[in-house]
Amino acid sequence: DFLHALENDIKPAFGTAQEMLENMLSRGVINWGQPVTSLLEDGMLYVQQAKATESSGLVSVLIEGAPNSGKSALAARLAKMSDFPFVKVCSPEDMVGFTESAKCLHIRKIFDDAYRSTLSCIVVDNVERLLDYGPIGPRYSNLTLQALLVLLKKQPPKGRKLLILCTSSRREVLEEMEMLSAFTSVLHVPNLSSPEHVLGVLEHAELFTRDELMSIARNMAGKRVYIGIKKLLGLIDMARQSDPQHRVVKFLSKMEEEGGLDMIARTQ
Amino acid sequence: DFLHALENDIKPAFGTAQEMLENMLSRGVINWGQPVTSLLEDGMLYVQQAKATESSGLVSVLIEGAPNSGKSALAARLAKMSDFPFVKVCSPEDMVGFTESAKCLHIRKIFDDAYRSTLSCIVVDNVERLLDYGPIGPRYSNLTLQALLVLLKKQPPKGRKLLILCTSSRREVLEEMEMLSAFTSVLHVPNLSSPEHVLGVLEHAELFTRDELMSIARNMAGKRVYIGIKKLLGLIDMARQSDPQHRVVKFLSKMEEEGGLDMIARTQ
Amino acid sequence: DFLHALENDIKPAFGTAQEMLENMLSRGVINWGQPVTSLLEDGMLYVQQAKATESSGLVSVLIEGAPNSGKSALAARLAKMSDFPFVKVCSPEDMVGFTESAKCLHIRKIFDDAYRSTLSCIVVDNVERLLDYGPIGPRYSNLTLQALLVLLKKQPPKGRKLLILCTSSRREVLEEMEMLSAFTSVLHVPNLSSPEHVLGVLEHAELFTRDELMSIARNMAGKRVYIGIKKLLGLIDMARQSDPQHRVVKFLSKMEEEGGLDMIARTQ
Amino acid sequence: DFLHALENDIKPAFGTAQEMLENMLSRGVINWGQPVTSLLEDGMLYVQQAKATESSGLVSVLIEGAPNSGKSALAARLAKMSDFPFVKVCSPEDMVGFTESAKCLHIRKIFDDAYRSTLSCIVVDNVERLLDYGPIGPRYSNLTLQALLVLLKKQPPKGRKLLILCTSSRREVLEEMEMLSAFTSVLHVPNLSSPEHVLGVLEHAELFTRDELMSIARNMAGKRVYIGIKKLLGLIDMARQSDPQHRVVKFLSKMEEEGGLDMIARTQ
Amino acid sequence: DFLHALENDIKPAFGTAQEMLENMLSRGVINWGQPVTSLLEDGMLYVQQAKATESSGLVSVLIEGAPNSGKSALAARLAKMSDFPFVKVCSPEDMVGFTESAKCLHIRKIFDDAYRSTLSCIVVDNVERLLDYGPIGPRYSNLTLQALLVLLKKQPPKGRKLLILCTSSRREVLEEMEMLSAFTSVLHVPNLSSPEHVLGVLEHAELFTRDELMSIARNMAGKRVYIGIKKLLGLIDMARQSDPQHRVVKFLSKMEEEGGLDMIARTQ
Amino acid sequence: DFLHALENDIKPAFGTAQEMLENMLSRGVINWGQPVTSLLEDGMLYVQQAKATESSGLVSVLIEGAPNSGKSALAARLAKMSDFPFVKVCSPEDMVGFTESAKCLHIRKIFDDAYRSTLSCIVVDNVERLLDYGPIGPRYSNLTLQALLVLLKKQPPKGRKLLILCTSSRREVLEEMEMLSAFTSVLHVPNLSSPEHVLGVLEHAELFTRDELMSIARNMAGKRVYIGIKKLLGLIDMARQSDPQHRVVKFLSKMEEEGGLDMIARTQ
Ligand SMILES: Nc1ncnc2c1ncn2[C@@H]1O[C@H](COP(=O)(O)OP(=O)(O)OP(=O)(O)O)[C@@H](O)[C@H]1O
Ligand SMILES: Nc1ncnc2c1ncn2[C@@H]1O[C@H](COP(=O)(O)OP(=O)(O)OP(=O)(O)O)[C@@H](O)[C@H]1O
Ligand SMILES: Nc1ncnc2c1ncn2[C@@H]1O[C@H](COP(=O)(O)OP(=O)(O)OP(=O)(O)O)[C@@H](O)[C@H]1O
Ligand SMILES: Nc1ncnc2c1ncn2[C@@H]1O[C@H](COP(=O)(O)OP(=O)(O)OP(=O)(O)O)[C@@H](O)[C@H]1O
Ligand SMILES: Nc1ncnc2c1ncn2[C@@H]1O[C@H](COP(=O)(O)OP(=O)(O)OP(=O)(O)O)[C@@H](O)[C@H]1O
Ligand SMILES: Nc1ncnc2c1ncn2[C@@H]1O[C@H](COP(=O)(O)OP(=O)(O)OP(=O)(O)O)[C@@H](O)[C@H]1O
Ligand SMILES: [Mg+2]
Ligand SMILES: [Mg+2]
Ligand SMILES: [Mg+2]
Ligand SMILES: [Mg+2]
Ligand SMILES: [Mg+2]
Ligand SMILES: [Mg+2]
Repeated sequence: DFLHALENDIKPAFGTAQEMLENMLSRGVINWGQPVTSLLEDGMLYVQQAKATESSGLVSVLIEGAPNSGKSALAARLAKMSDFPFVKVCSPEDMVGFTESAKCLHIRKIFDDAYRSTLSCIVVDNVERLLDYGPIGPRYSNLTLQALLVLLKKQPPKGRKLLILCTSSRREVLEEMEMLSAFTSVLHVPNLSSPEHVLGVLEHAELFTRDELMSIARNMAGKRVYIGIKKLLGLIDMARQSDPQHRVVKFLSKMEEEGGLDMIARTQ
Repeated sequence: DFLHALENDIKPAFGTAQEMLENMLSRGVINWGQPVTSLLEDGMLYVQQAKATESSGLVSVLIEGAPNSGKSALAARLAKMSDFPFVKVCSPEDMVGFTESAKCLHIRKIFDDAYRSTLSCIVVDNVERLLDYGPIGPRYSNLTLQALLVLLKKQPPKGRKLLILCTSSRREVLEEMEMLSAFTSVLHVPNLSSPEHVLGVLEHAELFTRDELMSIARNMAGKRVYIGIKKLLGLIDMARQSDPQHRVVKFLSKMEEEGGLDMIARTQ
Repeated sequence: DFLHALENDIKPAFGTAQEMLENMLSRGVINWGQPVTSLLEDGMLYVQQAKATESSGLVSVLIEGAPNSGKSALAARLAKMSDFPFVKVCSPEDMVGFTESAKCLHIRKIFDDAYRSTLSCIVVDNVERLLDYGPIGPRYSNLTLQALLVLLKKQPPKGRKLLILCTSSRREVLEEMEMLSAFTSVLHVPNLSSPEHVLGVLEHAELFTRDELMSIARNMAGKRVYIGIKKLLGLIDMARQSDPQHRVVKFLSKMEEEGGLDMIARTQ
Repeated sequence: DFLHALENDIKPAFGTAQEMLENMLSRGVINWGQPVTSLLEDGMLYVQQAKATESSGLVSVLIEGAPNSGKSALAARLAKMSDFPFVKVCSPEDMVGFTESAKCLHIRKIFDDAYRSTLSCIVVDNVERLLDYGPIGPRYSNLTLQALLVLLKKQPPKGRKLLILCTSSRREVLEEMEMLSAFTSVLHVPNLSSPEHVLGVLEHAELFTRDELMSIARNMAGKRVYIGIKKLLGLIDMARQSDPQHRVVKFLSKMEEEGGLDMIARTQ
Repeated sequence: DFLHALENDIKPAFGTAQEMLENMLSRGVINWGQPVTSLLEDGMLYVQQAKATESSGLVSVLIEGAPNSGKSALAARLAKMSDFPFVKVCSPEDMVGFTESAKCLHIRKIFDDAYRSTLSCIVVDNVERLLDYGPIGPRYSNLTLQALLVLLKKQPPKGRKLLILCTSSRREVLEEMEMLSAFTSVLHVPNLSSPEHVLGVLEHAELFTRDELMSIARNMAGKRVYIGIKKLLGLIDMARQSDPQHRVVKFLSKMEEEGGLDMIARTQ
Repeated sequence: DFLHALENDIKPAFGTAQEMLENMLSRGVINWGQPVTSLLEDGMLYVQQAKATESSGLVSVLIEGAPNSGKSALAARLAKMSDFPFVKVCSPEDMVGFTESAKCLHIRKIFDDAYRSTLSCIVVDNVERLLDYGPIGPRYSNLTLQALLVLLKKQPPKGRKLLILCTSSRREVLEEMEMLSAFTSVLHVPNLSSPEHVLGVLEHAELFTRDELMSIARNMAGKRVYIGIKKLLGLIDMARQSDPQHRVVKFLSKMEEEGGLDMIARTQ
């Protein structure tokens, strides 16, 4: 029948892990300040721990932060830096329209594959979407929740090592679901929060002249800055399209419009 | 069995995108005032941004406004003006009676097709209906919600560009569903809100004589006007059927009856 | 198996539209007062509008009123008076025991058929039953609700005209479901509310003698009358069975028992 | 598989209507007082009305009362007295373990069969069980409710007559479900409520001697009596098993234990 | 597939009724006091009533009491004492993991079989588990509830006699489900509630010496005793394993720990 | 189809009980204090009781405690010490992504197998995960709950002995589900709660020098200690990776960070 036809038309073509990591890192990882350095250092510590022969075989880390803060890119970067022979990405983007049971089977398969390898790293991206979290109700897939709660604590077989890197922008939801305590550790990805952070990214973008950068710096001085790296890169894209003489104004006004720049201090 | 027979009888015959856009634009886009001009200008900016090679590959815009305000026609107009080689319309009108899983598969297929094209534009019409939003409960399809939340943020493959234009008359519902933040930008479509706006449309309709128009203008002077373009065109239709000497009165009384014309100011 | 056998035994044998309209009009439309005249006039105006070549192609009217007030008969009468070549009745009586998905497919098929005809009229009878509305909960079929919300606003293809006549005795429920605003217009069918209305029907029934009618008139004078035409015709049936000398008393006492006749004013 | 085997093992063997009516009337209808006479008279009036050629073709009566009050027996008695050529019993006892959809199909089939006959009578026994009413929640089968709401109002085809007799001990539940207004009329079956009522049944039972009956009468004098006929017949059964000299005491004490006999007045 | 394999592996091997009754009576019925005598006497009365030719054909008894009070054993004992040729046990232990629909079919089959026999007795053990009662929510199987509500009141065919013995430790839950009124009678199984009751069981166990028994009696004197027979037999088991000189102390301390022995009066 | 393929790809490869017990005991059972000794002694008492020929055939023990307190390891240790010929582990780790019905069938199969053996021991690990307990709602699998409630009380066939060891970190949830009373006994596994407990484990780990241990002891003196054995072993792993001179500081700061070491007393 029709539904069957549709279904067969959509053969899930899961990208290779390599391609997926590249995609998550499409614009690289710009070192816009101390928080980026610390996070990568801490992350590498867990990578080492996961590798160590004497330790327990399982390390699971939650990488959480505001939407657009760069969580997925950082998880991908750590996965690449780990140099583990087996790396897999478990992402809701590959499971659009899956029933919760198909989702669970797919997740399980990724872990089952990992258990067969000596050194494995699994990136579980956007956990709240994997859980089908819908705020009205609220609703979520309990089947997937139960699967993750078990998999996050399940030791790989004797002699195997597994590093799990999860990302989420709904830390409080995971807490309510009693999932937070299932992680070995939690890393927080902050938004850019000072004019210096922003200027670092702008310089790296090579769009504005030295004078323009100074003008932007003057404008941001004393103001509250709070913006995710992905959003900021988007604003730079937009500024790049506008005509050169309005670029600075355009950029600054959009920053304010999007709530990234405030005259008065605000609490997130 | 019977159900199977029924189902096979109803082979979804999806119209071509071209036909669907024409249908949405059946009565053109009348420039009844400054808001129409601005909205189209802003819209074209996003079209440019979506096309630009240096930018991120994904622009998603929500076009929201009151029922009958002209959202679908404006989305269709922008899609046509974009001149993108691949344009698809994803509309609940094509999915009447679909289960939520059939709906998701159909939506997913449209996006999968788009990812295979270099420059694609998808019009997602009437999002609250796609989500099966029912105010008693409330109820909605979480499967579809999760699919849209992922698809609105999923980057097309390297080198591909995707512009997503969504329409909705339930902005506050999308907000509650945490979907609003998944859009790059939001454009608001206003109702006609001054006698001048209405007169612009009436002139364009070539139904009333100059004297009749002046009489209508006098009648509306100082009153609160608030009506969607689709509703207004309907009233003109009706007036066209009534006999010539009562046309003006008929038109004005229907305007009041439908709440489009008020002696005292009202807030929407 | 057994269920399958049962299911196949019940081949839905949908009556022809002609038969169904006749059935709805089994006892004709008695002109018991001004409200009947006005309602038919207003109704014919929408019929004209639906036919007109210049207009938008879609007119949808809700005919609502108390249970037994004659909604279905009036919808059928308008459908017949329209003289449209294609007329279909969409009634819950044809869908007893259907799953919500079978219901939706059936409804959709009726509309799909109509779109293929130039001038079509669809009578959607008893909308609250089509929606499986159950007051405890409340419960309803969201699948059917979504289908109707879309179909009530979906333009027929270019050049085709569609008139939709819906009936319901639960206007407030449709309002809560945000379905009311999907109609082009709403017509209210009132109950009989004065002794004159009742006497008109009694005369038409040719059961009582002139003296009996006068006696009934005297008895009803000054009292509150509120009864649906279908209920009233039922009471006359009953009176017809009782022996001639008690007929008047029987009729009047049953009127009171059923709440159709009150000594003191009551609000519905 | 196992379930399938079980299911096939249980071929629903619906008894003939004749057998089912006999079963419902197993202990006859004892005329224990005026309420029984009136109820049967009123009932026969509806039977006549259903038969009359001039009337509308459909009469539906709800026979409601406390548990054990004799509703099913009275419905069966009326159905037999009607002398209609087609009589069917629609009882939850034939549908134990049916899914709601199988229940609906079975109900529908009974009605479909009736529509093919000129004069039909359907006894729908124990409506609250047909509706799967469970007081915790509450829960009920909306599919069955919708089916009954439609079938109770659906006219049989032209020229056919249908009498529907429903029984229920949960009138207030039907009211909440807005089913009450779908009936043409409602008949209330009372419990026995005076010593005379009880004595009438006891005499009919031919168990007690004249002296014993007088002793029982003296004992009940001035007390509140409230018991269903089925319960009362059960107590007589029990008394019949006890040894003759304790029979009267046993009977009276059980009456009190079961709440059928009270020193002080109680409201049901 | 896997699930199918599992399912087929588990062919429900329902024990014979004889074996099941023996199992329920594994430790016999110790006459620990007057309550046991009375309960068995009352029970036999219902057995007689069920057999009597003149009576109605159906007697249904609920045997309810605290967990571990001995309900199942007493029901089995009555069933054996009835000497009915057809005896069946309907127990949740035979339906572990069954869907509610499989449960209903199994229950129904047992009753259908009984209707074919002249004198039948069905033991329905642990009704709250048959109903899948889960206190959080609460949840229960409405399908099973409806089936039981009907089967408990359904007369066997003419000339057949049926005795139904149900056990439950959640009387108040059955009450809420309106199931209590469906029984002909209710028998309450009490816990042991005086030192004499306990001593009776201890003597029967032949574990303690005369001196030990006296020491236990002295210890319990004046204290509140409240313990189920199954729990008490368990404590004796445990005491039997401990070394002889600590037996008495061990027994008494465990009694207190389990809440079966209290210094101060408590209400259950 | 795709789902089928996935499903078949994942043939559940249940480990042997031996392997599973070894896995649960991967790091042995360190005797860090009196609580460990007592718990094992008490546990062995139940093992003896389960074996005894005179006793009832069924002993079921709940081993409950905070997350990471060592419940699973202790259950496995008792199971091994029991020396029962048949030992099986029933763990959610083997049922990731199973539907509730597949879960139930798997659980049932383990018990069915056990009933065929003379002396059986079943370890049911992590009951709250078997029950699919999700705190938002809350949600749980009632099918599994009902299965466990029955299996925990079901006597093995005559002559067979069964010992059930369950673990859970949500005692209060089991209580709410009325499961607690289904166990013969409950054993509580405490966290380490004094500096001595911790030092015992550290010495056993052979990581720190004598001086380092003394420095750690000084640091913990007077502070509130509360940490699970699994967490503590994890911290030692981490300390093992850091460079020798910062090891002590690292260990102590992580202890505080994880909430295992507090300046001020806290209540769990
Ligand atoms: N320091 C940085 N940290 C993270 N991402 C960076 C950094 N510098 C540049 N990027 C780029 O910014 C983008 C971050 O987007 P990413 O999808 O990782 O954000 P996110 O927090 O996962 O968003 P979402 O909340 O939508 O999941 C990537 O394209 C990445 O290449
Ligand atoms: N300036 C305008 N803007 C939008 N639509 C216009 C304009 N001028 C004329 N139209 C016509 O008005 C109609 C607008 O209807 P449209 O379906 O787009 O409204 P909508 O807001 O999408 O309604 P709904 O809330 O029902 O989805 C179209 O037929 C369109 O051709
Ligand atoms: N003026 C009238 N208006 C409507 N119906 C009339 C009129 N005169 C006579 N009738 C007859 O009265 C009956 C009205 O019943 P109808 O089923 O239309 O009522 P309804 O409001 O749809 O009832 P329900 O609430 O049950 O759907 C029909 O048999 C119709 O032939
Ligand atoms: N006057 C009477 N009215 C009704 N039933 C009577 C009367 N006299 C004797 N009976 C007998 O009493 C019994 C009434 O039981 P019946 O099943 O009809 O009660 P019910 O109200 O339907 O019970 P339930 O609430 O369980 O459905 C029948 O066996 C019937 O033969
Ligand atoms: N007087 C007695 N009454 C009942 N059972 C007794 C008595 N004397 C000994 N026993 C034994 O005590 C045990 C009672 O257990 P039984 O399973 O019947 O209790 P229960 O109340 O059904 O428990 P549960 O609440 O778990 O269903 C049986 O093994 C039975 O043989
Ligand atoms: N005394 C001890 N008691 C328990 N476990 C110990 C002990 N000493 C060392 N261990 C080791 O500590 C670990 C305890 O982990 P285990 O999985 O049993 O904890 P748990 O309480 O079941 O955790 P969870 O709450 O995640 O189920 C095991 O690896 C075990 O070998
Ligand atoms: Mg991300
Ligand atoms: Mg629109
Ligand atoms: Mg009607
Ligand atoms: Mg009855
Ligand atoms: Mg029991
Ligand atoms: Mg554990």
